[in-house]
Amino acid sequence: MLEMQLNGGVCTPKGFRGAGVKAGIKASGNHDLALLASDVPARCFGVFTLNQVKAAPVLYDQEVLSRSDRISAVLVNSGNANACTGPDGWADAKRMAQVAESALGLGKDSVLVCSTGIIGRKLPIEKIEVAVPAVHEALSHEGSEAFARAIMTTDTKMKTLGAVLTTSEGEIRIGGACKGSGMIHPNMATMLAYITTDIELPPTFRPEFKAWVNESFNAISVDGDMSTNDTCILLANGASGISYHNLSLSEQGEFRRAIESVMLELALMIVRDGEGATRMVEIRVEKATSKDDARKIGRFVCTSNLVKTAMFGQDPNWGRILSSAGSAGGELIADRTDLFFEDVQVLRGGRPLDVDYTRLREVVARKEYRITLVLNMGDSSASSYTCDLSYDYVKINAEYTT
Amino acid sequence: MLEMQLNGGVCTPKGFRGAGVKAGIKASGNHDLALLASDVPARCFGVFTLNQVKAAPVLYDQEVLSRSDRISAVLVNSGNANACTGPDGWADAKRMAQVAESALGLGKDSVLVCSTGIIGRKLPIEKIEVAVPAVHEALSHEGSEAFARAIMTTDTKMKTLGAVLTTSEGEIRIGGACKGSGMIHPNMATMLAYITTDIELPPTFRPEFKAWVNESFNAISVDGDMSTNDTCILLANGASGISYHNLSLSEQGEFRRAIESVMLELALMIVRDGEGATRMVEIRVEKATSKDDARKIGRFVCTSNLVKTAMFGQDPNWGRILSSAGSAGGELIADRTDLFFEDVQVLRGGRPLDVDYTRLREVVARKEYRITLVLNMGDSSASSYTCDLSYDYVKINAEYTT
Repeated sequence: MLEMQLNGGVCTPKGFRGAGVKAGIKASGNHDLALLASDVPARCFGVFTLNQVKAAPVLYDQEVLSRSDRISAVLVNSGNANACTGPDGWADAKRMAQVAESALGLGKDSVLVCSTGIIGRKLPIEKIEVAVPAVHEALSHEGSEAFARAIMTTDTKMKTLGAVLTTSEGEIRIGGACKGSGMIHPNMATMLAYITTDIELPPTFRPEFKAWVNESFNAISVDGDMSTNDTCILLANGASGISYHNLSLSEQGEFRRAIESVMLELALMIVRDGEGATRMVEIRVEKATSKDDARKIGRFVCTSNLVKTAMFGQDPNWGRILSSAGSAGGELIADRTDLFFEDVQVLRGGRPLDVDYTRLREVVARKEYRITLVLNMGDSSASSYTCDLSYDYVKINAEYTT
Repeated sequence: MLEMQLNGGVCTPKGFRGAGVKAGIKASGNHDLALLASDVPARCFGVFTLNQVKAAPVLYDQEVLSRSDRISAVLVNSGNANACTGPDGWADAKRMAQVAESALGLGKDSVLVCSTGIIGRKLPIEKIEVAVPAVHEALSHEGSEAFARAIMTTDTKMKTLGAVLTTSEGEIRIGGACKGSGMIHPNMATMLAYITTDIELPPTFRPEFKAWVNESFNAISVDGDMSTNDTCILLANGASGISYHNLSLSEQGEFRRAIESVMLELALMIVRDGEGATRMVEIRVEKATSKDDARKIGRFVCTSNLVKTAMFGQDPNWGRILSSAGSAGGELIADRTDLFFEDVQVLRGGRPLDVDYTRLREVVARKEYRITLVLNMGDSSASSYTCDLSYDYVKINAEYTT
């Protein structure tokens, strides 16, 4: 049985403590330094941006994880991305980790670091050095919210979630926090996500974790740009005393679905908080030749300005969806394609049907709805998620000034 | 010597006649049926949309051109795209060609057809049948403007251009007309372009023509979507009495540059007339590993909403440009990359320079300017062109209703 806890977060699983303080990095004076620590070293998996312009903390974490998969803490600052900062950037990322390792009494390669905020400005490392003792002091098993608040940049809402899965071996807890504002925003930067669990996971879970990221945080890269700092980290500390291997096969499946649900819910919080967004739409591509094709087509439709402005205008404009899908580069034959807005079918075999436009307009007026494109080419499916493109998106992004 | 003629068009070259009439296809009652005819069969090259959802006239023209490369006329309707119209669509496209062939007293496979407008509605073929005699009657050597007007949909300006190249063999004339409104607009559809010349061209020019299309109309596919109807057609009728083979090597080069210039100027007219556009920006990528990489990176930057909203906001936001370039998938190493706004350098080797922001803000306030990204990876370059993303873009596309 899975119970979601909206007031939960990264500290919902046993043995995790979190904190967030004001280090003076953000001009606004808001919370900007967050620490997440596990009482015992946790098995760690990381997925990082594929952008060829990678921020220093991304490069640092990748190097640490190439040497060790046991991590005890993650130190995150907001307000400065430590990206495009040259050799100083690397030194500052390393120094962040060292300061945290020292405060926590840990050895080398025990702490990962993340940064999010303005690109191209030197990290104020001395402010972080001064604040680390305070954030260490503030660590608490009730620190989910403090952690989630301190990683925010343009987010208008905190994004945090917990879950408890009851199994025959006992309770397994899952928690998470993320930041990001729908449209990845390279100057205020980045999607960051942290998932915790108190199960013991084997190192062979790496490909599964990547698959979960693909179905959640990577299914919402709604404007096609990857930031220089995008990071998703999973920490599994085993503090529940339950090992994945001891679960029955069906309970293993339940656990996998549970962690996937937590990650997807967190990802959807980002879409709902998209810059200027007034609605969220799932683009479901079914019966594609391959999973890759289903994703490619869904994500292409999700990034089409023509599709996204039509969503804002509450216009059931199927022509834009079909045309965008056709230019995505996946296998698609127009004459085989069916298209639905929720349960209202508008195209069969690529030809428009006589549609009840009253029902159709009721669907596109909803805050959240699903568009399903059935390709009838194969048996693979994928969902992608997008928000609409509104006046406010242009306003937020045009009026932000470097 | 090349002389551009802003009042010229598809009828600038000898032996071409054009016309445009009102056939009643557009609800607005504006001109919507255009005919372009060559006095003698012209060598024809066509480049068509790569969208997997192709409109019936695209499929029809591709089939005709697979059988014959001599074409005498092109009949174009606006107001209806004849796309997603099933078997009726093909029959209607074929009927359009037959009616024109019959009116012009020509045989099978002599006429190409194009359609642009609303997707998914049956073409009102009977209205076209009725209007063909009128458009045929109206054909005139002064018909450049009438032709260019009748192919417009959401365009706010007519797009037409002529050029005269003086060679040792005599004058060669080049003309063109196109339609499209910056952001390709699948429901009112499509970029259409027609280039005419009175030189005699060999059939071996096909790859060159594709290259010219890549450097012009394909360099402005600014929102990443290809429409179902995109078409670019070149007709070379030899009416000047000059054959390409008789030109000196240097004059052949002049001719190639001339036709490329005409096509680029027409393409830029589309960007300038972009929906809601307030400025046009060239993204120049230099010293890339390959031409493909230079194009891929330039076009990716050109479609970034974050970059385009920054242009609208007159914000010299180099972080968004570098981050977008890094996620394009071409080879790029941040630490090697230089970035310029016109002649103002903002990045050297991936690191921000101390910049005179007054000069920088003067550049981004211009109606047209160039951003140059020097990758220092190889020796290939490419230019791509985009317009900004404004409130009006959202307004135009959100308020249009199917």
